[in-house]
Amino acid sequence: MTISLQELSGHVGAQLHGDPGLQVHGIATLQHAKPGDVSFFANPRYRKQLESTAASAVILAADALSFCPAAALVMDNPYLGFARAAAFFAPPQERSVGIHGTAWVSPDAIVHESAWVGPQASVAARARIGQDVLIGPGCVIGEDVVIGQATQLVARVTLCQGVRLGRRGLLHPGVVIGADGFGIANDSGVWVKVPQLGGVRIDDDVEIGANTTIDRGAIEDTVIEQGVKIDNQVQIGHNVRVGAHTAIAGCVAIAGSVRIGKRCAIGGAASIAGHLEIADDVYLTAASEVSKSITRRGIYSSGMPVQENQMWRKNIARFRHLDDLTRRLRRLEDHCGFTQDQD
Amino acid sequence: MTISLQELSGHVGAQLHGDPGLQVHGIATLQHAKPGDVSFFANPRYRKQLESTAASAVILAADALSFCPAAALVMDNPYLGFARAAAFFAPPQERSVGIHGTAWVSPDAIVHESAWVGPQASVAARARIGQDVLIGPGCVIGEDVVIGQATQLVARVTLCQGVRLGRRGLLHPGVVIGADGFGIANDSGVWVKVPQLGGVRIDDDVEIGANTTIDRGAIEDTVIEQGVKIDNQVQIGHNVRVGAHTAIAGCVAIAGSVRIGKRCAIGGAASIAGHLEIADDVYLTAASEVSKSITRRGIYSSGMPVQENQMWRKNIARFRHLDDLTRRLRRLEDHCGFTQDQD
Amino acid sequence: MTISLQELSGHVGAQLHGDPGLQVHGIATLQHAKPGDVSFFANPRYRKQLESTAASAVILAADALSFCPAAALVMDNPYLGFARAAAFFAPPQERSVGIHGTAWVSPDAIVHESAWVGPQASVAARARIGQDVLIGPGCVIGEDVVIGQATQLVARVTLCQGVRLGRRGLLHPGVVIGADGFGIANDSGVWVKVPQLGGVRIDDDVEIGANTTIDRGAIEDTVIEQGVKIDNQVQIGHNVRVGAHTAIAGCVAIAGSVRIGKRCAIGGAASIAGHLEIADDVYLTAASEVSKSITRRGIYSSGMPVQENQMWRKNIARFRHLDDLTRRLRRLEDHCGFTQDQD
Repeated sequence: MTISLQELSGHVGAQLHGDPGLQVHGIATLQHAKPGDVSFFANPRYRKQLESTAASAVILAADALSFCPAAALVMDNPYLGFARAAAFFAPPQERSVGIHGTAWVSPDAIVHESAWVGPQASVAARARIGQDVLIGPGCVIGEDVVIGQATQLVARVTLCQGVRLGRRGLLHPGVVIGADGFGIANDSGVWVKVPQLGGVRIDDDVEIGANTTIDRGAIEDTVIEQGVKIDNQVQIGHNVRVGAHTAIAGCVAIAGSVRIGKRCAIGGAASIAGHLEIADDVYLTAASEVSKSITRRGIYSSGMPVQENQMWRKNIARFRHLDDLTRRLRRLEDHCGFTQDQD
Repeated sequence: MTISLQELSGHVGAQLHGDPGLQVHGIATLQHAKPGDVSFFANPRYRKQLESTAASAVILAADALSFCPAAALVMDNPYLGFARAAAFFAPPQERSVGIHGTAWVSPDAIVHESAWVGPQASVAARARIGQDVLIGPGCVIGEDVVIGQATQLVARVTLCQGVRLGRRGLLHPGVVIGADGFGIANDSGVWVKVPQLGGVRIDDDVEIGANTTIDRGAIEDTVIEQGVKIDNQVQIGHNVRVGAHTAIAGCVAIAGSVRIGKRCAIGGAASIAGHLEIADDVYLTAASEVSKSITRRGIYSSGMPVQENQMWRKNIARFRHLDDLTRRLRRLEDHCGFTQDQD
Repeated sequence: MTISLQELSGHVGAQLHGDPGLQVHGIATLQHAKPGDVSFFANPRYRKQLESTAASAVILAADALSFCPAAALVMDNPYLGFARAAAFFAPPQERSVGIHGTAWVSPDAIVHESAWVGPQASVAARARIGQDVLIGPGCVIGEDVVIGQATQLVARVTLCQGVRLGRRGLLHPGVVIGADGFGIANDSGVWVKVPQLGGVRIDDDVEIGANTTIDRGAIEDTVIEQGVKIDNQVQIGHNVRVGAHTAIAGCVAIAGSVRIGKRCAIGGAASIAGHLEIADDVYLTAASEVSKSITRRGIYSSGMPVQENQMWRKNIARFRHLDDLTRRLRRLEDHCGFTQDQD
């Protein structure tokens, strides 16, 4: 597939600096691009690669223009430009229709004639599978599940009883939606199960990464609002609500009854304790631990970056006495007649 | 399903404050309850919702009685009361029996006539499936597996060769029991696999959350004792032993050969290093990191809650010099003739 | 299976101290060994068990010889000796061939006649399955996948479109290779998907633990080099490259575009932020957080071991003011006329 830079710049929404008639036919990284390829520059870490790229054109922001040895497609958000260009060059998906011979569909389920149910998948009673839905190999669709138009389950996705998925969703292999939440009550040292009577509602345009789990609610539903993007191996407990257009990176652990606002970004391996509220537009950096509600937008962080082991051992040993250290400083200040306020 | 408050209070083991003849028919949260609903109050965070609830009755502890605008079912552990009430109102489960037409059962396996093997499941040679066992869609049961009476595998659970499950277990989708432990020995820079010859034994009344993994032992068995409750995405390494009635929240990582006592509670996203012992009745708060054995019951914690990013950056930069800071304080104390003992 | 100590010591590469004609027939832990068993001693934690073992022989290093009450097989790396002995005593694996009656193989796939495709597995169009490959129950093999000779997929492994596996690999249940990487670009508050056009290449002799996920690249491939060993529930983002003979313990989170060197060891529950480089021969202790590239070999650590909860609360409260504390010390030094350099 070949396109002129003029057409491509229109397609991605960039301003072209270079020969509008130049033809490009693929997308590549700065480092490995060849003439005829388009690349992109969105991370300053890769500036040397920009300066030496063999790409015919690079999507970049205006401030990088002077380092670019090729034609440039200039826009404020070059990563968005890359997304659009990649979508243009992506090969068309193979599209299947119908129910595979090895699949099992309950006679009480309703599967739209344009949908696909792949090999070894099963669809239980009263499930309703919408138009253009793809249910890949090995998926398990429970009783009373509803899947909205054009949603894709790549493979081996499990939707437990009653889960409702919106339209245009994309669920990757190993996802489990609607397993019981972790509800247990202690009865004289023995745990008693709290029946999990709620469901899960996933709104439109949600992507869910491989082996991510989203539990059903205890009484009411767990809810993932529109446009939320979730990476792999994320755990979302019962009765959590994730606000629209929030992004959650890999390996995040979200305990039960947490409410996350809209347009948040949760860094990888972060954890959020139960029953907390996170305001809209909160950005948590990777490996953050949230143990209190966050009521104001902003960037929040915790965690401890690695040091050389020997130095870390010394510092962490001191940390165990940090309260003591602070008290010693205060007493020394008093002794010296130099009492300072805390900043 | 309708029940009088008198009957319900007897059922949940609470003392009734209110009209014993009042009929209730469902369970709901404080916030969304309507007349005719029962709710519960177990977390002080929700006191405002208690004060304004429309529920007909609320299960709560005595100290919350004065804030309750409705009839009250008073008991020390209202969450336990909720568990019992929810069990009462839970809809009866659909119960299947027999071997689904798309399942595969080895002719050398023994499946009790009251058990169910669901769509696309497979049961390998010499497996023994007990009375009233449910093997949901897509489960894989390996050779020589034993499953005790009334245990349920919801869907897509994998039990590797030789795994033994007790009675009344509940395993959620994506669970993998009995995969090889991570045993590798280094031979001049190349890793050599250590054969994992042990098994996994899960005792009665164990619940295991979605996508949790429990590895087989290297020589002896990995053991999960009676009544243990494990949440989603927990990893339990080879030769771990988890004591009876311990609860493990989501995303916990337990390395090999760890021994955890009875009645412990392990908070979400905690990690425990290999070969350690944790005493009975130890409570680890969320995101704790255990790198030494814990020999006494109690509450233990680590981890760093988030701060506003700019402040965290400053503090963590100082942490890198905490040993230095401590030494400077000591020298300054000496200089001032004010040497303090550590607290 | 019985073997003399002389033969066994030759097999494991150890120097025998004891009766060369003594017959042994199994392997066991120090604690539970009986006469006739071989055991091993590789962790000083278990010295008391060594001193009281009933094993007929113990594989150990020279410095432990004096504590050994039995015959000894002495070698520098007794854990390697254990690996070799265990391989000797391991029961032979059952080996199946052919395509199970409940499996589905696309007529356009090529499956070697010596390979096995187990119950409920599916193999899509243009997949090429090599000699002696085992595809266990419930596996999903996508279009254009290539699997090299003698690689084993235990059960319920998902290989997405185009994934290439080398020879002698071992993939445990629940593994997902080649799901889309987490590529999203923000367009005025709405996330736009970045098509993930790269693939995944896994080289020879790689083991991958249960429920681990390895994403496909955005443009180029995600690459796992030869001899890498990966434990359970590890997440490897798009375009990561893991160098040969690196070992990664359970629950590690590796963000996109990270490059890890050769012969590294990544401790359990560690996390590595995106776009970083880790040099060869880097050792990260458990729960380490890497937020900058590591350019020199060595041992690196972070994380905070648990303390008794009350003490941790005090210390962590002080940590929130550590920058302030450091400034106070500096000012007090100035006040006292005792300005110290940082160490």
